[in-house]
Amino acid sequence: MASPSPPASPAEPVPARQRGRRKQAELLQAAAQLFAERGLRAVSVAEIAAAASAHPHQVTYYFGSKDGLFVRAALRLLLADARRLEPIGRRQRTPSAFRNALARTAVNLPSVPLAVQAMSISEQRPELHDVTAHHLAVLFHQAAEYLSTVLDRRGWVVDRSLLVEARTFWSAVLGSRLIHSSGFGGSSSDIDLAGVLSVREG
Amino acid sequence: MASPSPPASPAEPVPARQRGRRKQAELLQAAAQLFAERGLRAVSVAEIAAAASAHPHQVTYYFGSKDGLFVRAALRLLLADARRLEPIGRRQRTPSAFRNALARTAVNLPSVPLAVQAMSISEQRPELHDVTAHHLAVLFHQAAEYLSTVLDRRGWVVDRSLLVEARTFWSAVLGSRLIHSSGFGGSSSDIDLAGVLSVREG
Repeated sequence: MASPSPPASPAEPVPARQRGRRKQAELLQAAAQLFAERGLRAVSVAEIAAAASAHPHQVTYYFGSKDGLFVRAALRLLLADARRLEPIGRRQRTPSAFRNALARTAVNLPSVPLAVQAMSISEQRPELHDVTAHHLAVLFHQAAEYLSTVLDRRGWVVDRSLLVEARTFWSAVLGSRLIHSSGFGGSSSDIDLAGVLSVREG
Repeated sequence: MASPSPPASPAEPVPARQRGRRKQAELLQAAAQLFAERGLRAVSVAEIAAAASAHPHQVTYYFGSKDGLFVRAALRLLLADARRLEPIGRRQRTPSAFRNALARTAVNLPSVPLAVQAMSISEQRPELHDVTAHHLAVLFHQAAEYLSTVLDRRGWVVDRSLLVEARTFWSAVLGSRLIHSSGFGGSSSDIDLAGVLSVREG
């Protein structure tokens, strides 16, 4: 498997499809690492393909375009990063400490600016809407389930459904990052992200 | 003044500079109208110039690029639209009605998707950061002053400084629009924008 495998064609047997799935996963992982290090513009399709022992044309074959690969890679990074909030939140003993820890950590996740950029690209490319919608749905469900376990354990409550709490929080996190990275200076204390969460004693 | 005026040069007297300022304003107004009707991609620099009786090269001269003109036009539209929230909010008799009216109206302002797109473009173009920062600062100050008059009149309060209240609200509005226009379906009730405002009885 050292040489790049060609794209699977419908006539090929199962092992080729398995190779195809593995190659897609390798391309996504290489892309995520390179985009996280240097951003969308500074990374070429040829570099990503080389890092995944693939042909450049496999990027187009599997992901449609460099943008298609970027959107998937950036939103997967966000999903993985969002998991990093969970142990930090679980350690907090009061609703206030929990809200503050989540807000401070979320807005500083390295994947948040990449996710904002990915969502802006998706806005301009209808063929990527389903991909983006799927990843965001996973993000919100993951966050709602996490909140559910924390609230049960601590006896805390929220003033909305858990899914609405999750979506409202992430809206403010993504919007806050959009404001800051578009040129508006200032610090994260300019925006009360902790206050967007309604978690309180039950 | 029927024929397009050339860009002002340093050697020219005051009237030429005045013509320059007027031409910039005409270009911005023509651009805002065309972009609002058909979006960034479907409008050409030549069309905007024709609508403002200007030469296409004046767009580059005054605004650096089509993107530079778009960012200015979109953020000016947002500032004008944000003013439309004000009478709607003033009519509400309870904090809850006020929060709901502002949230519902803000997220549906026609300029909000254009502003999100403008901020994404600005993120990728450091030369536009100052322009974006200036417009957002005006937006937040305008909102904070408006809140101040409404709270004084009604005897209501907020749990944060008025500027933080304004920035937090607009973060959630812009983030919510980014989520929806990037492909995530659903309705605006999925996100509790009204609950992001902390306005309550004093």
